[in-house]
Amino acid sequence: MSGKVYLNGKFVDRDKAMIPVEDRGFMLGDGVYEVVRLYKGNPFCLDRHLERMQNGLDVLKIKFNVKELEEVCYKIIKINDLEEANLYIQVTRGAAPRQHHFPEDIRPTVLVMSYPAAPISQETRQHGVKIVLLPDERWNRCCIKTIQLLPNVLAKQQAKEAGAFEAVFYRGDIITEGSSSNIFIVKDEKIFTYPLKENILGGVTRSVVMDIIEAEGLEVYEREFTRQELLDADEVFLTGTTTEVMPVVDVDGKKISTGKPGKITGIIAEKFEKLKNKVAEGKQL
Amino acid sequence: MSGKVYLNGKFVDRDKAMIPVEDRGFMLGDGVYEVVRLYKGNPFCLDRHLERMQNGLDVLKIKFNVKELEEVCYKIIKINDLEEANLYIQVTRGAAPRQHHFPEDIRPTVLVMSYPAAPISQETRQHGVKIVLLPDERWNRCCIKTIQLLPNVLAKQQAKEAGAFEAVFYRGDIITEGSSSNIFIVKDEKIFTYPLKENILGGVTRSVVMDIIEAEGLEVYEREFTRQELLDADEVFLTGTTTEVMPVVDVDGKKISTGKPGKITGIIAEKFEKLKNKVAEGKQL
Repeated sequence: MSGKVYLNGKFVDRDKAMIPVEDRGFMLGDGVYEVVRLYKGNPFCLDRHLERMQNGLDVLKIKFNVKELEEVCYKIIKINDLEEANLYIQVTRGAAPRQHHFPEDIRPTVLVMSYPAAPISQETRQHGVKIVLLPDERWNRCCIKTIQLLPNVLAKQQAKEAGAFEAVFYRGDIITEGSSSNIFIVKDEKIFTYPLKENILGGVTRSVVMDIIEAEGLEVYEREFTRQELLDADEVFLTGTTTEVMPVVDVDGKKISTGKPGKITGIIAEKFEKLKNKVAEGKQL
Repeated sequence: MSGKVYLNGKFVDRDKAMIPVEDRGFMLGDGVYEVVRLYKGNPFCLDRHLERMQNGLDVLKIKFNVKELEEVCYKIIKINDLEEANLYIQVTRGAAPRQHHFPEDIRPTVLVMSYPAAPISQETRQHGVKIVLLPDERWNRCCIKTIQLLPNVLAKQQAKEAGAFEAVFYRGDIITEGSSSNIFIVKDEKIFTYPLKENILGGVTRSVVMDIIEAEGLEVYEREFTRQELLDADEVFLTGTTTEVMPVVDVDGKKISTGKPGKITGIIAEKFEKLKNKVAEGKQL
């Protein structure tokens, strides 16, 4: 966990990376973040992550151009000699005496740091994972990747205590997304995932996987599906930056189909693996 | 804005009050807070605020006993020589390498600081204020006073841009509460406010005002009311720690009744003023 951290224009030691208590990220959740996976030191879809961050900043009217972060990210990779790791990027509105509305003349707080990746074992990927379903109690604008993650924290904790890999949310009867992933189901060789609405995050891995599916000539639909449709699916899988493509074989203790990862999920995971390898070799996607 | 700040057991200068970027308050919104009003250096209902904070901490399983904060609050009041001011108290789960679920062996981050109160002018109180109505996009558990305040920030900013004092939320057709206040209506001498459910905060001033109303022998009901009922009310008022009891005379540009603060609101505000004076004299409520 050592290494340098970029904070507001400076590269500092990790234990020196401190922010004032009046930062609006700390007091008001007024900021956005991204997690970017590195394969052999090469970032996966950095451009898509930064583009999403810029959209979030623009919606929140935080005046910051992410353009400068690309160079910072590569510098963090270099000086920390990163290989298999995650970059973590966070931008908040900045520090000011506490008030709700936007302060005038405030400078954003900009942070880039890294974490060792906790790669998921091949065995887990081969066997698939268990998920639990929880009511989606989050705010209505999860399309913005804000640092307001307490509902996700509580859901992930509940999943952990249930021995599950992930908590997946539902609103009413409709499955939306996981606490840090998107979810897909396969039924009769058709693939479904929740449409891009205000209340879910447009996952980078979700969009990469959509591209893979289309390139494979498979049918994919952005369409709502119910809890029952999830349970009745032939295959289920999650996508996410650290999750990658993960087969789900158990939902709330109920087996999905035969209880083994499905064929189409396998095809997609394999193609995703190839993309990872390309990135690891330093190629652009 | 000078003065001392209590942070994790130490009283430090305000500009030395720094936290690590990996604090879960900064990265995950994993914490709770309270704002306590001081009148002539005496805290208003400190016990009720601390009790609410303890409840929030317990729900979130953040292991911290607020008991020790009472002494800290009085010390901050003394060393900063506070008179008309707000105490700000925040407790987060603490700092740890970023992950969603609760880390083991983590020590909470504990902060107590003060802000000058921005007292609302007598003129504003006499004339009443304008509010705007906005959809309630917050998460479902606003009964916990968490630092996830971005929806409130965005709503307050929208209110400010509309020249309004406060933004009040509705879900479907039902009015819930303000971005930093509770809301009451008066109709035919009956008083209504949204019931204490998971999706609103049980305001300290709300509960004090309920006590006042009952002591006055007036009828008060914790009952949902619609946007139309709000517009058709005889009187409308807000309650809150910094708002105190504030008459509302304009909702989205529509006058409430005659457009002047109502009689019952006046009675309640006067009684509240008396309580403030008692507190200012150092008496317990």
